[in-house]
Amino acid sequence: MKNFMCDDFLLQNETAVEIYQSIRELPIIDYHCHLNPEAIATNKRFKNITELWLGGDHYKWRLMRHNGVPESHITGNAPDHEKFDAWCAALEAAIGNPLYHWSHMELRQYFGYDGIINAENAAEIYAFCNAQIEKDDFTVQNLLKRSRVEWLATTDDPADTLKHHTKIRYDNIPGLAKVLPTFRPGILLEPGNPGFAEYIKRLRLAAGMRNEIIDWDSLLEALVNRLDFFTQRGCVISDHALDPPVFDPAVSDTKATLAFRKALRGEALTYEETIGYKTRLFSWLSEQYTKRGWAMQLHIGAMRNNNTRMHNLLGADTGYDSIGDAPFAQTLSRILDDLENRDALPKTILYCLNPTADEILATMIGNFAGRGIRGRMQWGAPWWFNDTKPGMEKHLITLASLGMLANFIGMLTDSRSFISYPRHDYFRRILANRIGTWVQDGEFPRDMELLKKIAGDIAYFNVKGYFA
Amino acid sequence: MKNFMCDDFLLQNETAVEIYQSIRELPIIDYHCHLNPEAIATNKRFKNITELWLGGDHYKWRLMRHNGVPESHITGNAPDHEKFDAWCAALEAAIGNPLYHWSHMELRQYFGYDGIINAENAAEIYAFCNAQIEKDDFTVQNLLKRSRVEWLATTDDPADTLKHHTKIRYDNIPGLAKVLPTFRPGILLEPGNPGFAEYIKRLRLAAGMRNEIIDWDSLLEALVNRLDFFTQRGCVISDHALDPPVFDPAVSDTKATLAFRKALRGEALTYEETIGYKTRLFSWLSEQYTKRGWAMQLHIGAMRNNNTRMHNLLGADTGYDSIGDAPFAQTLSRILDDLENRDALPKTILYCLNPTADEILATMIGNFAGRGIRGRMQWGAPWWFNDTKPGMEKHLITLASLGMLANFIGMLTDSRSFISYPRHDYFRRILANRIGTWVQDGEFPRDMELLKKIAGDIAYFNVKGYFA
Amino acid sequence: MKNFMCDDFLLQNETAVEIYQSIRELPIIDYHCHLNPEAIATNKRFKNITELWLGGDHYKWRLMRHNGVPESHITGNAPDHEKFDAWCAALEAAIGNPLYHWSHMELRQYFGYDGIINAENAAEIYAFCNAQIEKDDFTVQNLLKRSRVEWLATTDDPADTLKHHTKIRYDNIPGLAKVLPTFRPGILLEPGNPGFAEYIKRLRLAAGMRNEIIDWDSLLEALVNRLDFFTQRGCVISDHALDPPVFDPAVSDTKATLAFRKALRGEALTYEETIGYKTRLFSWLSEQYTKRGWAMQLHIGAMRNNNTRMHNLLGADTGYDSIGDAPFAQTLSRILDDLENRDALPKTILYCLNPTADEILATMIGNFAGRGIRGRMQWGAPWWFNDTKPGMEKHLITLASLGMLANFIGMLTDSRSFISYPRHDYFRRILANRIGTWVQDGEFPRDMELLKKIAGDIAYFNVKGYFA
Repeated sequence: MKNFMCDDFLLQNETAVEIYQSIRELPIIDYHCHLNPEAIATNKRFKNITELWLGGDHYKWRLMRHNGVPESHITGNAPDHEKFDAWCAALEAAIGNPLYHWSHMELRQYFGYDGIINAENAAEIYAFCNAQIEKDDFTVQNLLKRSRVEWLATTDDPADTLKHHTKIRYDNIPGLAKVLPTFRPGILLEPGNPGFAEYIKRLRLAAGMRNEIIDWDSLLEALVNRLDFFTQRGCVISDHALDPPVFDPAVSDTKATLAFRKALRGEALTYEETIGYKTRLFSWLSEQYTKRGWAMQLHIGAMRNNNTRMHNLLGADTGYDSIGDAPFAQTLSRILDDLENRDALPKTILYCLNPTADEILATMIGNFAGRGIRGRMQWGAPWWFNDTKPGMEKHLITLASLGMLANFIGMLTDSRSFISYPRHDYFRRILANRIGTWVQDGEFPRDMELLKKIAGDIAYFNVKGYFA
Repeated sequence: MKNFMCDDFLLQNETAVEIYQSIRELPIIDYHCHLNPEAIATNKRFKNITELWLGGDHYKWRLMRHNGVPESHITGNAPDHEKFDAWCAALEAAIGNPLYHWSHMELRQYFGYDGIINAENAAEIYAFCNAQIEKDDFTVQNLLKRSRVEWLATTDDPADTLKHHTKIRYDNIPGLAKVLPTFRPGILLEPGNPGFAEYIKRLRLAAGMRNEIIDWDSLLEALVNRLDFFTQRGCVISDHALDPPVFDPAVSDTKATLAFRKALRGEALTYEETIGYKTRLFSWLSEQYTKRGWAMQLHIGAMRNNNTRMHNLLGADTGYDSIGDAPFAQTLSRILDDLENRDALPKTILYCLNPTADEILATMIGNFAGRGIRGRMQWGAPWWFNDTKPGMEKHLITLASLGMLANFIGMLTDSRSFISYPRHDYFRRILANRIGTWVQDGEFPRDMELLKKIAGDIAYFNVKGYFA
Repeated sequence: MKNFMCDDFLLQNETAVEIYQSIRELPIIDYHCHLNPEAIATNKRFKNITELWLGGDHYKWRLMRHNGVPESHITGNAPDHEKFDAWCAALEAAIGNPLYHWSHMELRQYFGYDGIINAENAAEIYAFCNAQIEKDDFTVQNLLKRSRVEWLATTDDPADTLKHHTKIRYDNIPGLAKVLPTFRPGILLEPGNPGFAEYIKRLRLAAGMRNEIIDWDSLLEALVNRLDFFTQRGCVISDHALDPPVFDPAVSDTKATLAFRKALRGEALTYEETIGYKTRLFSWLSEQYTKRGWAMQLHIGAMRNNNTRMHNLLGADTGYDSIGDAPFAQTLSRILDDLENRDALPKTILYCLNPTADEILATMIGNFAGRGIRGRMQWGAPWWFNDTKPGMEKHLITLASLGMLANFIGMLTDSRSFISYPRHDYFRRILANRIGTWVQDGEFPRDMELLKKIAGDIAYFNVKGYFA
C-alpha cells in the first residue's frame, strides 16, 4: 500500500519513477490559460487563501453546491473564513475528484502544508496559509517564478489594448515567465448577439481607424491591424469555440458582407446568413493565422450557462456549464478540408468537451497530418471536465493507439488560478506512469534514453518547438 | 489467485475488505423496482425454480436466445425442467456476464447452494431448489424479510387503485419491508397512442370523479386526486421515460388543452401539438412533485420493442430492447432549466441507457446542484444493460471525477424478481473495492472512519435521507 | 517486469498462459480481408520489404505523416531504402500504437528477426529482410501456408469475373488456404455516384446478359446471376457499408424502379428517391442472402476521404479516413426489424467504426438473436481504428457484459497485407489474458476444460461453424 500522496504518488513501478525523475524539473509552458494579465502586470497580492483559492474557481463552487453549501458561502457575502470552512468540509469527502489532489498538491508546493484538508483542519489551514500569503513569496509574479513557468498564453479579445501585456513586456522582470496574448475573436463570430454592433465600435477604436467599420473590407482592415498588433505582443496562437461547428460550402464575400451589415444595423440574421458570415470570417482568419505561422485552437462541445436563474444572478463562468452531445464530425471535417485545400490550415489543436469524441478527434487529426510537419495537427490535452486522472490516462492511451503519442504537445492549465501549476506535475506523473507501465508489461523496450526522450518531449520540448 | 466467488469476491485489498465488512449488513432501500405488489399482498408462493427464476426475467431470456435455445424452452410450452436445463446450459459459458454472478449469488444466499451452475448440475440444482421452494422460507414476504429490505418502491400507474399497496399497509406484517408506490404517468404523456382516450376514462374512475375528463382543468383535477392518493399511500417518487426528451419553449395551457381534446377525440396529433402537450403536462407534474417534496426520476435513451415479429407474439418487456443514440443534452438542459427557473424542479435522478452519456449526466446534475441541498441532483445507478461490474466501476469513477461520489444515493434493483437483492451486495463489494483501491494507491488517506462513513452513506444512509 | 514481447507477451497470469497455449496453434479463418486475389493466383513475389510492408498500408502512412515524414518518402518517388528508413524512424517512438507490436511480431514470425525496429537498425533490417524475400518462402502462397490460414474471404464487386478466385480454385495447391470471394455490392447502392450507369453496363457484361439492364426486373436478373456465380465460387458472405443506414418504410418496387431508371439516365436523384432505391435493393439482397444461407456484414460509421487535396493526388484508401458520429441506432433497428419481420434477415455481423456505439451494437444483436441459432447475430471484431489492444479488451468485456462472449466468431485481419496474420496471435493472447484474468480474480471457476473450449470456440471453432 502507498501512503497518501507520497513521493511516488501515481507512479506504480520503477520505470515510471525513473522517467518521472527525468521530467519533473523541466520548465512549464502553459500555452492555454485564463490568467488575468492585469494581476501579473500589477503584481497583485491576495487578501487571504479564500480569495486565492475560491475567488473565481467555479470548479470548487460546483463541488460545494453538490455538497449542499448555501450560495452565501460560495459566491455570497459570508465571511471569508466561513467560506473556507465550507470548502474544506466539502472537499473532505471528495474521494476520486481531481480537486482533492490538486488542492493538496497546491498546499504542499506553495505553502509547505502536508496535512489533510478537512473540516477539522480548516481553521489551522486558514491561519497557516494566510500568514504566508502576506509575504512577498505570494505575489503573483513570485508565484509564477516559483512555478518555473517559461511562458504562458492568456486568452484575449481582439479589441483588447493588451496594455497589461505591454507593461509586463517592457518591465522585463528577471525570471518572470513571458506572458503572451492569445487571439480569441469569439464575440466577432456571434453576429446575432445583442452587443455585436457595439463591439465592432470598440474594435475600430482598438485598431485606431479613422473611419467607421461599415463593410467587409473595413472589418478586415481592423482585423489585420489587431492581428499585427497581437503578433507584435508575441501572440502565436488563436482560440475559437465552435459550439457547434458550422460550415457553408457556398459562402461568398458578398453573402458575408450583407450579413455583416445587417448585424451592424442590429437586425436579426437568418440561420443561413449567420453560418455564411461565420464560415467566411473563420476561413479568412485561418488564412491569416497560417500566414503568420500561428497555431489555432478549436474548442468544441461545451454547453454553457444552463441555469438561467443563476446566470441572471452571477453571470457566466460561475459553474453552470456541462457537456453537449451534438454530432459534429462531418462538419468539422469539411471545415478543415476546405482550409487545407486552400493552403489555409494552420497548425491546429482540437479539443472536445465530450470525451466520447476522443476517437473522432484522435483520428480526425490524422486526416490533416502531413506536409512534412511533425505533430502538425494535435488532439489537445483533456479539457475541463476531462482534466482528471482517468481522463488523462484515457487520453494518453487513445492518442497512442490512434496516432503518435510521442508528438503530443502535452499539458496546459486552462486555469484562472496562479497556483494551479501542480497540474503539470500531476500530468507528468500520469504520463511517466503510463509509459513505465507499458515497459513494465513488456509492451515497449526498456530503452531508458528513448523513454526519457519521449516523456521529455511530451512534457516540454514538443510544445516549445510547436510554437517556436 | 482468488477462488471462485470466495468471501473476498471482488475485493482486491485489505482496505476494501474492511470497508465492505462495515457495510455488508446494512439494510436495503430499493427505491426503484418492478416487483408485483399483488404477489407481496397475497404472499405468493412459487411453483418451482423455473417460475421463480425464468418466469418473467427477460435478461435471462436474451442470454438463452443468444445461445440458440428455441423459444419453446424460453417463453414457450416446454416442461419447466427442460427450460431450466436450457438455462443452466446457456449460463455455463456466460463468462463475464452479470447474470453469471447474480445467479450464483442468488443460489448461495437464498438456497445455500454452493456449486457451479452448468448443464451437468442442472437436474441436481432443480431438485435441490424445488425442495426448498415448497417451504415457508420462500413465500414472497419471507424472501423480502430475508433480504433485509427496509422499504421498496414499485412502479405504478396513476390510474392504479393501489389496492395491493393498501392491503400490505394495513396488514402491517412485522418485519416486512414498507412497500411504496411510484407515480409513473407514462401513458398520460403519450397522447398519440391508441388507448389514450380509454385510459383517460380509467383515470377518471380511479379519481372517483362525477364528471367526465374533457379539458385541461378536469384532467388536472383528476391528477391532483391521484397525486394526493399516492401521497397517502406513501409515494415519495415519480418516474418518467423521456424517449426522447422534448421541450416546447412557447407552450401554453391553451395549446395543451387543444391538443388534449383532440387526443380525447382519437384524432392524430401533429408533432408540435404532441410536444406542446407533453411539455405542459410534464411541467405541471414537476410543480406538483416539488410541492409535495417528491423526487423525480427521468429515464432516457431506451429503444424498446425493436423486434415486431416477437412483439406481436410476446408483447413488451420480453427481451427485445436496446440502447439508443439520439442526442438529448440540449433539450434536457432546457427542460430542467425551465423548471428550475420557476422553482418547480424537484430533487431529480437522471438515468440514460446509453453509457456514452455518462459524462453528460454527471455534469448536467452540476448545473442544477445547489439551493443548499446536499446531493439534490443525482445521476442514478447504472441502468439495465449498464448494471454490470465494469458499468458500476465506470459509474463510480466518473461520478467521483465529475461530481461528488460521497453524495450518491447508490444502488437499486430495477428488478421483477424477489431474489435479486444480492445485486445490492454485488454493488457494495464493487463500491468498497473502488474506495479501497484509491486508498491502496495512495490517492486518498487511510482514514477508516471517514471511508466507512462515505461507503455507508452511499450504500444506505444517503438514500434514506434523500427520500425522508 | 516482463521483457519486451517475451513468450508470455500480454499474458498476465498462469491461467492465461495455459489457455493461450491451447489455442495458439489453431488454424486461422480470416473471414474478412482485402487481400488481392491476383497476387494469390499468380503467386506474387515482392521486390523488397518496402513493397511488402509499405506498398499499400495506409495505417503505416498515417503514422509517418504524423511524424513529419515528407510525402515523397511515403507514397512518392523516394528510393525504397529511404522510405524504409523513414518508416523505422517513425515507428521507433510509436509507443502504445498497435503498429509497434504488429511490426515486431511480423519481423519475428516471418523473418526470425528479434531486434528492435528503430532508425539505428533500419539498414540492418532492410538488408536482413530483403535477403529472405528473394527466397521461395516469401511467395504469396507460401506466406499464406506459413500463416496456417484455412480459408480467407476477399472483398469483391458483383461485376467482378472472379477469374483469380477461379484459377486458385482449379489450381488446387496443396496446403493453400481456400480463397473465397465476398459479395460487396457497394457501387450498386450509390445510384447518385457519377459512374453508376457505366457500372450497370459492366454488371450486365459480367452476368452475360443478352439484353441491357433497363429496369428493376433486369437489374434483379443480373444480380441473381452474380449471386449464383459467387455461390459457385464458394461465397458465403456479403458486405455492405451503411454510411449512414437509411430506411424508407413506404418503399415499393415502383418507386425503386423509377429511381433506378432515373439514375441510369444520369439524372440526379432526390434524397427520397435515393433512400427508396437503397431500401428496396438492400432488402431484396438480404432476402437473397438468407435464401442462400450466406451471412451479411454491415459496416457503419466510417467517414472517408476527408482530405480533398490528397484524395485528388492519391485516390481512396490512402490514409485520410476517420470516425463519424451520426446517430443511427433507430434506423438500423428498423432495417433489421423489417427484414426479420419478412423472414429475410440472414446471419448478420454488425461493425461500427465509432467505439462509442459498442454498447448499441452489443445490445442490438440481442434484439434479433433467437430462432434457435446460436450466435446468429454478431457484433463483429473491433474494426480498423479499434483494432488495438485496448480496443479488443473493451470489445471482449462489453460483449461479455451485454451478450454471450462464448459465441463470438472472433478475429479477422481486414488487411491488404500477406503478413498481417500475427494479428490473430495478438488477439488470441488478449483473449486468453482476458479469460485468465476473470478466473484469476475469482470471477469464473478455474475449469480448464471449459475455459479452453470457450477460448478455442472464439479463436476458431465458432467462425468455422458460423459459415459452414
